[in-house]
Amino acid sequence: MFVIVTYDIVEPRVINKVRKILKKYLIWTQNSVFEGKITQGKLHQCLSEIGKVVDKSEDSIYVYRVGNHRNVTKDVIGQEKSFDELFL
Amino acid sequence: MFVIVTYDIVEPRVINKVRKILKKYLIWTQNSVFEGKITQGKLHQCLSEIGKVVDKSEDSIYVYRVGNHRNVTKDVIGQEKSFDELFL
Repeated sequence: MFVIVTYDIVEPRVINKVRKILKKYLIWTQNSVFEGKITQGKLHQCLSEIGKVVDKSEDSIYVYRVGNHRNVTKDVIGQEKSFDELFL
Repeated sequence: MFVIVTYDIVEPRVINKVRKILKKYLIWTQNSVFEGKITQGKLHQCLSEIGKVVDKSEDSIYVYRVGNHRNVTKDVIGQEKSFDELFL
């Protein structure tokens, strides 16, 4: 499946932890957006890791799942970025 | 169709302009994420307005389009937010 993960996290320390987890599974494409193809099992593992580090009373993680990646079209206005080369 | 719009914008002044445009068409659900059902025509109009205010050399707007909203599932970890009540 194809997933888009977006996050709104209060503590910078936690943001870094969440990014490190997401980077293991998906592609970092915008400041607070990761995307990519992933299996149900890997996604479950990824979200379980994230669930352990975020503060559920104030942080917010959205996971948009699309069964078939052919059903998603991505248009870009401006820069198409990839942060995966950056040191984290 | 269903769309998810995410943005990474450098100038706070431009962020506010983009949010004002997106609020006319979609639902503001996370700091830099809007989502919702929209027609092709309205989406075109929305992106055209955005194209006029962003700096394409440094800003980045992603538009993920899914033809049928039934093909998208959204899972939330932590808080599910809506900023639409907030003053902008």
